Amino acid sequence: MILDHKRKDDGLDKAARKAEIKRLRDMLVGQQQAIREAKLPVVVLLEGWDCAGKGNLINELISEMDPRFFSVKSFDRVPESEERYPFLKKFFDVLPETGKFLFLDTGWMEDTVGKYLRREIPKEEYERRVGSVNTLERQLRDNGYVLVKLFLHISRAEQLTRITALRENRDTQWRVSGDDLWQQQEYDRFLKTYGKFMEATEQAAPWHVLDGESRKKALYDALLAITGTVEKAIEAGRYDGSPMEQAFPLLGHPSQKDADLTAAISEEEYKKELKRLQNKLAALHNQIYRKKIPVVICYEGWDAAGKGGNIRRLAYPLDPRGFDVIPIASPTPGEKARHHLWRFWTKLPRSGHVAIFDRTWYGRVMVERIEGFCSENEWKRAYGEINEFERELTDWGTVVLKFWIHIDPDTQLARFEARQNTPEKQWKITDEDWRNREKWPQYEEAVEDMLQKTSTTYAPWYIIESVDKKYARIRTLQIVTDALEKAVEENVVRGMKSGKTKEAKK
Amino acid sequence: MILDHKRKDDGLDKAARKAEIKRLRDMLVGQQQAIREAKLPVVVLLEGWDCAGKGNLINELISEMDPRFFSVKSFDRVPESEERYPFLKKFFDVLPETGKFLFLDTGWMEDTVGKYLRREIPKEEYERRVGSVNTLERQLRDNGYVLVKLFLHISRAEQLTRITALRENRDTQWRVSGDDLWQQQEYDRFLKTYGKFMEATEQAAPWHVLDGESRKKALYDALLAITGTVEKAIEAGRYDGSPMEQAFPLLGHPSQKDADLTAAISEEEYKKELKRLQNKLAALHNQIYRKKIPVVICYEGWDAAGKGGNIRRLAYPLDPRGFDVIPIASPTPGEKARHHLWRFWTKLPRSGHVAIFDRTWYGRVMVERIEGFCSENEWKRAYGEINEFERELTDWGTVVLKFWIHIDPDTQLARFEARQNTPEKQWKITDEDWRNREKWPQYEEAVEDMLQKTSTTYAPWYIIESVDKKYARIRTLQIVTDALEKAVEENVVRGMKSGKTKEAKK
Repeated sequence: MILDHKRKDDGLDKAARKAEIKRLRDMLVGQQQAIREAKLPVVVLLEGWDCAGKGNLINELISEMDPRFFSVKSFDRVPESEERYPFLKKFFDVLPETGKFLFLDTGWMEDTVGKYLRREIPKEEYERRVGSVNTLERQLRDNGYVLVKLFLHISRAEQLTRITALRENRDTQWRVSGDDLWQQQEYDRFLKTYGKFMEATEQAAPWHVLDGESRKKALYDALLAITGTVEKAIEAGRYDGSPMEQAFPLLGHPSQKDADLTAAISEEEYKKELKRLQNKLAALHNQIYRKKIPVVICYEGWDAAGKGGNIRRLAYPLDPRGFDVIPIASPTPGEKARHHLWRFWTKLPRSGHVAIFDRTWYGRVMVERIEGFCSENEWKRAYGEINEFERELTDWGTVVLKFWIHIDPDTQLARFEARQNTPEKQWKITDEDWRNREKWPQYEEAVEDMLQKTSTTYAPWYIIESVDKKYARIRTLQIVTDALEKAVEENVVRGMKSGKTKEAKK
Repeated sequence: MILDHKRKDDGLDKAARKAEIKRLRDMLVGQQQAIREAKLPVVVLLEGWDCAGKGNLINELISEMDPRFFSVKSFDRVPESEERYPFLKKFFDVLPETGKFLFLDTGWMEDTVGKYLRREIPKEEYERRVGSVNTLERQLRDNGYVLVKLFLHISRAEQLTRITALRENRDTQWRVSGDDLWQQQEYDRFLKTYGKFMEATEQAAPWHVLDGESRKKALYDALLAITGTVEKAIEAGRYDGSPMEQAFPLLGHPSQKDADLTAAISEEEYKKELKRLQNKLAALHNQIYRKKIPVVICYEGWDAAGKGGNIRRLAYPLDPRGFDVIPIASPTPGEKARHHLWRFWTKLPRSGHVAIFDRTWYGRVMVERIEGFCSENEWKRAYGEINEFERELTDWGTVVLKFWIHIDPDTQLARFEARQNTPEKQWKITDEDWRNREKWPQYEEAVEDMLQKTSTTYAPWYIIESVDKKYARIRTLQIVTDALEKAVEENVVRGMKSGKTKEAKK
């Protein structure tokens, strides 16, 4: 894409432009109500040159809007070396719910191109992130988000004029940063890379280039792009993308069929191993904290399979300052009104921390599939979306381990009855557990699909035979300690696998 | 309170202690279910010496608990100079909902005593914070929280032994910080100040001192304190504190009776003033950003009084990177299950930022009072709790402005009918608005009470006559610009009014 500086005359004179801006602003105000009815969330991404007037343009766009139904987020430039989460997290964190507008004052373009040109990330990492951006934008589109991408363009000379004006005023000089000055100096490199980035990211939503040298025209063109896109989306109705075609590096195993449910351990062996592995885990936890390796451990499994007790034995040796157990229940209304992975993105561990998820994002392809809480398109698409999500985590250096805690129907029945008959355990068993039990065959099929479609080389599933709960506990501890030991040995700097910061600075 | 190092023998031998620990742990597990039924939230605060084994003790306490119903939060030591929020915010942020345990691995004691002795805050600020801690603990108790406070005690010699052991191991040496070494050196000063702090903060909940030199005894005593306190709370039922007796510096005005609803402005004057004041506000926004002054602007008012349009004119000149409009709706289930101010504490602006609340914490003493959504004790107590909340904000240097947007019933009726008759505005008027209108006299009384009981010298109410909406907009802009101008002139460093960091370092 070539960014040129020539004004494109649209033939509007001053009075006509003013009238058009008023008309479009009124239309935008009306659309606030319309997107609530159509259950559409709208994301307006405004990128552009430093000092091009992005803040001002956003203020002009929102000036007539009802503040209850939109928000504005700005992304401060956090140096890559201080980021404690995967690249995309900050953008997922702020996703709006249905019926709301979100205006982003710079976003994934600045965060990618700027960091690359400032040499905070190397070329391979930059290229990987362009891929991540395409993933993000496609996932947003497929999940019903309306995305409008704007780029506010000014020439090198105009940028210099503005920087100079800001620096001459005592109250505004702080707004010109070293980064701004550096961009002015490196204008041509930015110009080229911005163009390439835009070319590479037009799959899910087009870019609209605005002429930042004419405030009114930029405002008019921005209003045209936003109201036009929203209008089309309202007419078309909420989009529900189809399953993805992407190929993932699948392992093809494990399968429930291969599980040996007779697996057991003696009491003596259990005590010995538990102590040994917990001590080992405590030491490893210190090391992953020091080396800033993030860890995500996922627990799924049949009701009464022994998840809780298993998690407790795993958590026991961990330093509470460095881990969280995150119980996942059915989504709240605010969670349902957003991308299905939003509530997990927002709960990811900081680098160096451990997050243990007690039930996970796999609810989408199990309970939500079986109970019809989402459309067929949605759960079928979720396998790929989840693989992409976990890829983002592991590319950032996260150790991702997924446990399916496995038992057979007879064992479950015995445990349900034991709970029923023990007064202080009765609260653990609900009517819903009995209803789910009746759907064992459907769950069995869903679990098998899940294992086959989401056990990847980078985030494998482990079936943990748990008829003997003690055996299961030792197994998970063994897998976790092995994986952490490997991660510590590989000694990944700050988790950025596909490009280390240090190399970039050579 | 005197912290001594003498072991108090409770006559339990090793086997008896082990059996007792098991019994108490089982009891604690059972209480997880019981506090859910009793709708009690429980906060266990664990303070103590560096290297006393706090993390380990928490792990022992939680080892049998169900991770779905508790969480552990650790407070990293953030230097005072990097804090961007009022002192208490971080503790409010993590408050558990009813039915859950929260374990705090250090909290408001370490954050107060540590910062004072490390000279990050001066004596007056330390003393103010002791008062804030008492406020926090009383508010928690009054709002049904069960609070257990533990202090893990070790002697100077024991601390030295442990520091030495940690430093000798390559994988644990990073855990000994400069702060730890400094505490060891300054042990006697810490001892004295810890004791004084505990003496000064025993009003809402007692301190339990644990002997950190005997792991098993410390665990046993901690379990005793927690299960004993929880048991009593369950028997007594959820506490609903009574109205407070505290005196606040009340202004005694404004009153709705004094409002002159004929106040108006000419179109010409409006345009001129709007432009002038918005330009002034834009410049002031730069300055408060630079000087890191936080600003909280509260909007309350009759339905259809013109809040939305008023907020838009105020927000228009602000840089979107530095402000948020926060619409407040009725509380979600998660919000209802916590302290009523929790959802506002979590939304406070960072220093240098502006938060505009579209409806506020005053819902407690208006709609919740009138509709019976809270008990009489609760709304009567809320006046004082709100005054204390706003005091915390202004002590931190926040500019707090509160606007009551005022109209008469006839004006409201005319506006309701106009909305009803304008297709694109119909969504703005609901049956609830009509129902609220019928309760005008009750609201009038509640508003008057609110104005009289919460208009303080530090956070005054302003009645904004809004029959002429343009007049109202100019009034609020005028009040905001005046207040910000004054704040910028006073030039408060980092918002800490009652004690500037610099002085402390003399």
